[in-house]
Amino acid sequence: MPASPIRRLVPLADRAKARGIKVYHLNIGQPDVPTPPEAFEALKHIDRKVLEYSPSAGLLSLRKKLRQYYKRFHIDVDTDDIIVTSGGSEAVLFAFMACLDPGDEIIVPEPAYANYMAFAISAGAKIVTVSSSIDNGFELPPVEEFEKLISPRTKGILICNPNNPTGYLYTMKEMLQIRDLVLKHDLFLFSDEVYREFCYTGAPYISAFHLPGIEGKVVLIDSVSKRYNECGIRIGALITKHKELKANVMKFCQARLSPPLIGQIVAEASIDASPEYMLATYNEYVERRKFLVDRINKIPGCYTPIPMGAFYTVVRLPVDNADRFCSWCLEEFEFEGATIFMAPASGFYTTPGRGIDEVRMAYVLDKTELDHALTVLEEALKAYPGRK
Amino acid sequence: MPASPIRRLVPLADRAKARGIKVYHLNIGQPDVPTPPEAFEALKHIDRKVLEYSPSAGLLSLRKKLRQYYKRFHIDVDTDDIIVTSGGSEAVLFAFMACLDPGDEIIVPEPAYANYMAFAISAGAKIVTVSSSIDNGFELPPVEEFEKLISPRTKGILICNPNNPTGYLYTMKEMLQIRDLVLKHDLFLFSDEVYREFCYTGAPYISAFHLPGIEGKVVLIDSVSKRYNECGIRIGALITKHKELKANVMKFCQARLSPPLIGQIVAEASIDASPEYMLATYNEYVERRKFLVDRINKIPGCYTPIPMGAFYTVVRLPVDNADRFCSWCLEEFEFEGATIFMAPASGFYTTPGRGIDEVRMAYVLDKTELDHALTVLEEALKAYPGRK
Repeated sequence: MPASPIRRLVPLADRAKARGIKVYHLNIGQPDVPTPPEAFEALKHIDRKVLEYSPSAGLLSLRKKLRQYYKRFHIDVDTDDIIVTSGGSEAVLFAFMACLDPGDEIIVPEPAYANYMAFAISAGAKIVTVSSSIDNGFELPPVEEFEKLISPRTKGILICNPNNPTGYLYTMKEMLQIRDLVLKHDLFLFSDEVYREFCYTGAPYISAFHLPGIEGKVVLIDSVSKRYNECGIRIGALITKHKELKANVMKFCQARLSPPLIGQIVAEASIDASPEYMLATYNEYVERRKFLVDRINKIPGCYTPIPMGAFYTVVRLPVDNADRFCSWCLEEFEFEGATIFMAPASGFYTTPGRGIDEVRMAYVLDKTELDHALTVLEEALKAYPGRK
Repeated sequence: MPASPIRRLVPLADRAKARGIKVYHLNIGQPDVPTPPEAFEALKHIDRKVLEYSPSAGLLSLRKKLRQYYKRFHIDVDTDDIIVTSGGSEAVLFAFMACLDPGDEIIVPEPAYANYMAFAISAGAKIVTVSSSIDNGFELPPVEEFEKLISPRTKGILICNPNNPTGYLYTMKEMLQIRDLVLKHDLFLFSDEVYREFCYTGAPYISAFHLPGIEGKVVLIDSVSKRYNECGIRIGALITKHKELKANVMKFCQARLSPPLIGQIVAEASIDASPEYMLATYNEYVERRKFLVDRINKIPGCYTPIPMGAFYTVVRLPVDNADRFCSWCLEEFEFEGATIFMAPASGFYTTPGRGIDEVRMAYVLDKTELDHALTVLEEALKAYPGRK
């Protein structure tokens, strides 16, 4: 398995810190927003004598609560359709393992979350990408581009909506195009919707489960990590109405015995997070997004489209090579004792050469920190020898 | 992936319970012994604002503590050799994924823990078994039996010591035989040692890491589940000094982001469980083991060798077919409102027909419950139409 560009940079960031340099982490989706108080209360009141295995599909009480949660988004699934996993990561891995045979293919619009590739490799399957572009704000590539790639080995389409890394939110028109492809070619639709709480547009969020006629084809990937700022508890879910697939996924679940018990207790409590908490988190991201996008687009040569969801955006930089620029920032640059860690976008593309002057930024720091980070970026761009 | 015989019986047990029948669970390794108080104290004092991702290799503080823990068993590893996983299950899966290419083979003495097969399938690899037998107490099969199976695709030998399902504890002589095979054929030695705290013989417990000359070939699988009775927290470890393998395992770790944070905090605290707690747990199993083995061997036609470790034993029953007998107990039998759930041993063998009259029993209930359960078994054997 190849190492991603971000991971190659981690030791450089560690060395910068060892030199006493402050590193602004815009590279990862680890929010600084607090976990809801309900989560910590639940931890204090675990009334058990034995921290025993939970059922392989997850605690029934959590699955019932998730069902109610999804109803708020007009996603109507049964408790039995919900399988609790160790993070969204395990949901993706099990979805691939259960749906794909070695050599099978999935089509994914790129740029895409780099770990999809890693999980596909684990399943012996292949990710095939259609390119979306920063020039049209990462909208869905034309249907014909998908059609060109469909082969007898194509088993599914994977989307992330709202999107990591682009922040793009698919429109109803786009979602219906995807649905038609799924129907026409008898595919699975893997839909990673972990950022659904973070949509910044008047247009409604569209779940794969909202699409008429493909209910049985949808494999929804979910996680509580981002919405309750509890990435560490490793609780996600795989949701499907496809009976045979569900039975197949359950075999992988049984082999790993059970998802984390305490994480499940915390997740269940977190679903009761107050509307005030959820709104405060949401508003915080709204402000950061506005701040970040406005500030970036004021820096000469930089450009980012307005992300409509999640808490990432892809930024074009006036540099020869973003991988090199990101390394250089960590290895050779500092401004007033600080530098910046960004994710080179090349890691999110499989097409060689694409994203070469792009980075992904996560707006997971508060505005003051973001402001400093972008000042560092501005100065770095002035000093960088490979400036375009 | 085929469903194991135990899993096929779970719905039968559920239906028996629905009919108001008490079911004695001797089928699973879920101890009833309480989790140490240190674990619950740690949960009450989690002083964090955000339940964030932990490092992919696990919290440094936990890995340092594990290193100290292993020292008590004369296992000398560096903190960097320890990778924290989501249970021992993930350690096995990642070991297989990182060491094996599709089509590669591992040799395992059977009967063996059924999920090894499931994880091998996930890795596209193949488990090849050498048979050990109840007739000689499940001692290590002769070296020649291993030699016969070694092919250019053989990449490793897997042992579980103390053994699940047999309770067998390998002797130094046997371990040295395994070492010689590993050296001669340049193999990995996967050694699952999660039951090391439960050895009931004067002879010392021998870790794969105690074997001179193969340090770099050992992949140790560990878990805190059984020793601190916290199966639900899903914390295990993969330990190896093989640099390339470590780097390869880390890629799988990075793809799944991190092991469960709260489970790690609990595991770290549990390593401080008092010697009194550890001894009380140990003594409890010693008593149950003696009670179970003596009682079984008094039932006409039943036989079990003395298990020297773990908390399982394989029992030969005077029945035509243990799968059928176990189903029959759950579906058609009850004695004073109760029945018994045992694991048919056929699920632990890959050689067809082996273990046909054997079951695995876990002594995870207290003596009173075990006594009732064995009375039920005795009566069931009298009534069963397929009695031999």
